[in-house]
Amino acid sequence: MRTQVAIVGGGPAGLLLSQLLHRRGIASVVLESRDRRYVEQRQRAGMLEQGTTDVLRESGAGERLDREGLVHHGLELRFGGAGHRIPLTEMTGRTVTVYAQTEIVKDLVALRLADGGDVRFEAEVLEIDASAPSVTFRHEGRVETLDCDYVAGCDGFHGVSRPAVPGIRTFARDYPFAWLGILADVPPSTDELIYAHSDRGFALHSLRSPKVSRLYLQVAPDEDLGAWSDARIWDELAARFATGDGWRLREGPITDRAVTPMRSFVAEPMRHDRLFLAGDAAHIVPPTGAKGLNLAVSDVTVLARALAERYETGSERLLDDYSATCLRRVWRAEHFSYWMTTLLHADPEADEFARRLQRSHLEYVTSSEAAATTLAENYVGLPLA
Amino acid sequence: MRTQVAIVGGGPAGLLLSQLLHRRGIASVVLESRDRRYVEQRQRAGMLEQGTTDVLRESGAGERLDREGLVHHGLELRFGGAGHRIPLTEMTGRTVTVYAQTEIVKDLVALRLADGGDVRFEAEVLEIDASAPSVTFRHEGRVETLDCDYVAGCDGFHGVSRPAVPGIRTFARDYPFAWLGILADVPPSTDELIYAHSDRGFALHSLRSPKVSRLYLQVAPDEDLGAWSDARIWDELAARFATGDGWRLREGPITDRAVTPMRSFVAEPMRHDRLFLAGDAAHIVPPTGAKGLNLAVSDVTVLARALAERYETGSERLLDDYSATCLRRVWRAEHFSYWMTTLLHADPEADEFARRLQRSHLEYVTSSEAAATTLAENYVGLPLA
Repeated sequence: MRTQVAIVGGGPAGLLLSQLLHRRGIASVVLESRDRRYVEQRQRAGMLEQGTTDVLRESGAGERLDREGLVHHGLELRFGGAGHRIPLTEMTGRTVTVYAQTEIVKDLVALRLADGGDVRFEAEVLEIDASAPSVTFRHEGRVETLDCDYVAGCDGFHGVSRPAVPGIRTFARDYPFAWLGILADVPPSTDELIYAHSDRGFALHSLRSPKVSRLYLQVAPDEDLGAWSDARIWDELAARFATGDGWRLREGPITDRAVTPMRSFVAEPMRHDRLFLAGDAAHIVPPTGAKGLNLAVSDVTVLARALAERYETGSERLLDDYSATCLRRVWRAEHFSYWMTTLLHADPEADEFARRLQRSHLEYVTSSEAAATTLAENYVGLPLA
Repeated sequence: MRTQVAIVGGGPAGLLLSQLLHRRGIASVVLESRDRRYVEQRQRAGMLEQGTTDVLRESGAGERLDREGLVHHGLELRFGGAGHRIPLTEMTGRTVTVYAQTEIVKDLVALRLADGGDVRFEAEVLEIDASAPSVTFRHEGRVETLDCDYVAGCDGFHGVSRPAVPGIRTFARDYPFAWLGILADVPPSTDELIYAHSDRGFALHSLRSPKVSRLYLQVAPDEDLGAWSDARIWDELAARFATGDGWRLREGPITDRAVTPMRSFVAEPMRHDRLFLAGDAAHIVPPTGAKGLNLAVSDVTVLARALAERYETGSERLLDDYSATCLRRVWRAEHFSYWMTTLLHADPEADEFARRLQRSHLEYVTSSEAAATTLAENYVGLPLA
C-alpha cells in the first residue's frame, strides 16, 4: 500500500491537511484510531481566527461555516462588577467566528469522502518509520504497512507521532486550576464572549449557536464533577458574572459537562526526517486565548504549502523551514495564552502583591488603547509568517 | 514652634513639596536627618518623565535642568545580539530627560534656601503625632516639637513616617537578583539608553552627562562587590551588550560602584489622619522602569494641589482622595516596573518554558507596534490623574 503523504490522526488538523493536499493534487491517506461518530462528537474549541476561516474556505469547507458561523467583532472583559468591551475589529480590521470544532470535522469528513478521499477510521497506528518512511497500522483486524514520501503526525497530545521523534525537547507548564465546561440548551445571555475575572475565579460565557450556550468555570485541577449540581453550577456562574447594573444570566438544561486541565506544552523540533508534527501532537495551550485549533490550522497550512512546493518544484526549502516557521507562531500563541490565563484566573498560590498587580494589569488593558490592541491582535490572530 | 506643613525628609520628594507649597503661599519646615552634603551626593535615579520636568519647571527648579538635562526620544532593547529601538516620542508625543537626582536635590536646596525656606539638616525626627498633629525632633542637641496642620512623610523606605500609620497594609516582592551599578568617567557609548537582555543576565547602559557613563549589571542579591575588579566589570558589560555587528563599549575609570537590591513594595493607605506619605516612604519599585523618583514627584504634586485647595477653599475633598489618587498611579508603575524587570532579567529560578516565553515576549514587544507602545507610554509616564 502506498500514498504520497500518510496522515496520522483524523481530527481537524489531519483532515484539513488531507483536503489542502487534495486541492493541490497530492494524494494522502488519513489513519484515525477512533470511529467516525466519536471524532464528529468530541467537544472542543469553537473560536476561529479570520486566517482559519480563510483557509477553511480555500479548502472548500467554507459553505456551512459561512451560513452558520457567527461572526464576532469584539469581546468583553468583566471584572470589579463592570464590563469593558475590546473592539477587536475596530482595532485590527479582522473578525473572529464562532463555529464548533465538531462541525468543522463533520464538514471535512464529508468533503474528503465526497472527493473519494481515503479516510480510515478505527485504524490504529502501531509504528511510524520516519526514514523509510512508512506507517504500520491495524485496521479491521489486519496489520498493514502504508509506504509514503512523508508522514504528518496530527494525532494529538496522546498520539504516537511525537514519541517517534528521537531526542525531542519538551517545554511544559501546568496551572493550578482547570475549567469546568458546560453546554446548555439556552440562548446565550450575551452577543459577544464575556471573559470574567473575580476573586471567586475565572468564568467564560461563550456560545455554540443562537440556541446553545457554552460556559466555563475555573475549578481546581482535581475537581470532582460529582460535587457540581446544576444549581451549583448556575449559582457560581451567576456570582462570577455579576455586575453592578443587574446583568442577568439565562439558565437552561445542561446537556454536557466536563473538566479540562490547563496545560502549556511545546515539543521541538516539529520535524524528524520525513515525519512532520502538527497541532496538539506538538503543542498544547491553555484554552483561555482560544488558540489551540487555530494553531493546528496554521501548522497544516504551512505544511501543505511546503509539500506543494516540494512536489511542484522539487525544492525542500519550505519543508526545511517548517519547524522554525511554525514554532515562531507557536511560541507567540503560547505566550499570549499564558498571558490571558494569568491575567484572568484567580491563582490560588498568588500573594496579595500579585493580586494587586493583576488588578492593575486588568485596569490597564481596559483603559489603554495600546494595551487593548495587544490583546485584540493576538486574539484575532497575527498574520501567517 | 509652628508651621502649616511639617515635612519629614529632605530628599527630592520633601524638598519639591516644600517648594510647591511655597509657590502657593503655604509655609513648611523640612526636617532631614542627614547633612546637606550627604543628601546632595547620594547616587540615585536620573530618568525624568516629561510630567516630572514640567512640575520641576513649574516649581522654579527648571533652569539648570533645561540647560543640562539631556532630552531623549527613544531607547533600545537589545537581545539575541541585535538592537531594537523603541521610538518613545514618535509613539507617545512625549520625551524623557536624563538629569540626576543629585542635581535636582542641589537645585531644590539652593532654591528653598534662596527663598528663605526652613530646611533643617541633621534634624532627627523622634516622633510623629498624626492627630495633634506635631513632629518631635532632635536638632543641634535640642529636642523640639513642631506643631502643624499637616505632616508629610517623605523620609523614604527606612524612615519613621510609615510606622506612624497604625494598621497600614503592605505588599511586597523581592527579586532573585540585584544591580551592580557603576559611574565611569567615559563618554557614553550610546546616545540613548540600552536595556540589554542575555542569558548572562540583564545590563543597562545609561548616562549622567556627555562625559559620564552610568552602567548596571544584573548580579546575585548577595553579590560580593569585592569579587568584581574593574576588568571583570567591563568584560561582563561587553559580553552582555555584544552584538552581531561589532558594537563596542567604551571603557574608562570607574568612580563609584554599589549593589542595589531589587524590591517591589506598596503600603496602603498613604494617609492616616493628618499624616500623608509620599514617595519611597510608601512604595518602592525595582529600578528597571525608572519610576521611583517620578512616582515621588507625582505624589507630592497631588499632595501640594490638595493642600492648596484646602487652604484656599477649606475643602478637604482632594486630601480625602489623596491616597486613592496616588495609589492608582503607584500600582500602574508597580505593574510596569515588575513587567520590565521580568521581561529583561535572566531569572535564575526560571525553567526552560519560562525562558522561551520570555524570548517570545521580547520578540513581540519589538515587532508589534501596539506592544512597543505599551512600553513607551508607561516609560514616558501616563498622565497625572
